[in-house]
Amino acid sequence: ADSAVIARARERQAQLTKPAGALGDLENMGVRLAGVFASARPHPRGVAVLVAAGDHGVAAGGVSAYPPEVTPAMVMNFLADTPAGPGGAAVNAIARTVGARVYVMDAGVGAALPDHPALIRASVRRGTRDLRREAAMTRSETETLILAGAALVRRAARDGADLIVPGEMGIGNTTPAAALTARLLNVDPAQVTGRGTGVDDAGLARKLCAVREALARTPVTDPLAVLAEFGGFEIAAMLGMMLQAAALRRAVVLDGFVEGSAALVGVALVPALRDFLFPAGECAEIGHAAQLTALNLKPMFRLGLRLGEGTGGVLAAPLLLAAAATLREMRTFGEAGVPGG
Amino acid sequence: ADSAVIARARERQAQLTKPAGALGDLENMGVRLAGVFASARPHPRGVAVLVAAGDHGVAAGGVSAYPPEVTPAMVMNFLADTPAGPGGAAVNAIARTVGARVYVMDAGVGAALPDHPALIRASVRRGTRDLRREAAMTRSETETLILAGAALVRRAARDGADLIVPGEMGIGNTTPAAALTARLLNVDPAQVTGRGTGVDDAGLARKLCAVREALARTPVTDPLAVLAEFGGFEIAAMLGMMLQAAALRRAVVLDGFVEGSAALVGVALVPALRDFLFPAGECAEIGHAAQLTALNLKPMFRLGLRLGEGTGGVLAAPLLLAAAATLREMRTFGEAGVPGG
Repeated sequence: ADSAVIARARERQAQLTKPAGALGDLENMGVRLAGVFASARPHPRGVAVLVAAGDHGVAAGGVSAYPPEVTPAMVMNFLADTPAGPGGAAVNAIARTVGARVYVMDAGVGAALPDHPALIRASVRRGTRDLRREAAMTRSETETLILAGAALVRRAARDGADLIVPGEMGIGNTTPAAALTARLLNVDPAQVTGRGTGVDDAGLARKLCAVREALARTPVTDPLAVLAEFGGFEIAAMLGMMLQAAALRRAVVLDGFVEGSAALVGVALVPALRDFLFPAGECAEIGHAAQLTALNLKPMFRLGLRLGEGTGGVLAAPLLLAAAATLREMRTFGEAGVPGG
Repeated sequence: ADSAVIARARERQAQLTKPAGALGDLENMGVRLAGVFASARPHPRGVAVLVAAGDHGVAAGGVSAYPPEVTPAMVMNFLADTPAGPGGAAVNAIARTVGARVYVMDAGVGAALPDHPALIRASVRRGTRDLRREAAMTRSETETLILAGAALVRRAARDGADLIVPGEMGIGNTTPAAALTARLLNVDPAQVTGRGTGVDDAGLARKLCAVREALARTPVTDPLAVLAEFGGFEIAAMLGMMLQAAALRRAVVLDGFVEGSAALVGVALVPALRDFLFPAGECAEIGHAAQLTALNLKPMFRLGLRLGEGTGGVLAAPLLLAAAATLREMRTFGEAGVPGG
């Protein structure tokens, strides 16, 4: 982000017709958006949610409340024709309310998916290997998915997106996200391993064991090696989305815990990525708060979401558009002739 | 709200393609909206923010960081022509991002306002009397403003509004709001008297004294009598908005502390009003949390807003539209053929 623009934005913010600080966190969000869009009067418009789906070898270990068959079924749900429009999942319904475009990518789903014109095919393998026993992905697979995520952001940007919401679907994927988070933040897995879609106590115990087994397997700390060892195809794709969005000066709206694990890899690789990240809500998954603390970023709401799909990011998009609009469109005390400025 | 519809909405909610509870507070918001709109698939569309402005006799007592001249100046700012469209205040900029219509009412501003075709004139007096010494409003003035607020909601509803955001502008109005809240919740004024637009320590002490003086003056507890004694013209207008919105089965998005004081009067008069209230954020003003606790309602975000104007309510509108959309448009596990429902 651009420090001269940020200084100008901050100066303008201080002159707008409101008591200083009365717009709360919106004020800092507006200034940060000024940095992203290199304008003291930032004007983001289009919103895109990019949902990457992938399956996970570790799901065979009973770490999720749902079977892996749900991943391909949900991908087709994201694409389904419904009376309300394309897509019958939460992210589709929410995206329609804000005019956000939904892109759906097969990043490595465990089953063959039927043909669909809107499905973006980037799969190199039907699900990752089991991270308890071996690297989930090869380095080459990891890089391919990073590039696929980056390519999708370029397409969304060409289609008009200024706010990029990486989203994901993948039964079992809070297990790799927990492993990534534990290693990158150097904390005990118990602090960042939660119930995901709602696994029971026995499942949670298996999940924690799986994370511990994986971490015990290898001491790697290089961010890309960590991602390959413990990550997932959709997580690699989201990392590519974030890096490409920042490179194109687009804002990244950060949804939940799995997205957060991709962001941790990204910031470890490129610290400046942080300036382009805007966390939506604090999600109900334990470990998300630790990610946000490490990123030194404050979430916008706490609605108890734990769905993924980018849903929280799409919900947050109007708040970001509003933050930019106040900075861009409000008059100053001088312009409005209001006393007290 | 309609309990049969709410039961049907809850049943539908449980079958949607997501883990149970994964949409967090959005799920309950959707079900409550089903009750408001008497449909298990609620479809609210238009958003209107109705900004009532009034001045306060007590402002002469140095209870605000700003002089009363700011109130009429801000009213004209709400109506000003700007390059971005009508209105140069925060509420205008935010409203444009969500397509919300802004209505501006002179509910009792302290100065004569210039002619403006969009200004709704409902003033019966240029500012209230000083609540430290006498009733702020007569019963007749109070009722006139309640009816004016109600009439404006009927107009907004005719214009297509399903979500009604009462908003306010009035230098000094967190003082009457604190007095109303203290009396209606039967708590010590110190618990609900805050810094408003940012008054300093000496001002806060004067403000607290003013609230104590007012409350000591009369022991009334009848809600309308409390409103007349300690309230304000814009607060009475917002009460009328809320009651009329509920009567028309529209949802009321509740902004901050001053709006909350009107809601407390409303719920004291008509307990069922509560079912139509959707608090936006927890605002930074102390006392707001106590109001929400008394109303048994949970706010959607905590962005530290303390501006008023209905800004928080407009920011929250997209979250309500999204909550309704998920309940209305998502497919069920059965419809989508997703296992695990």
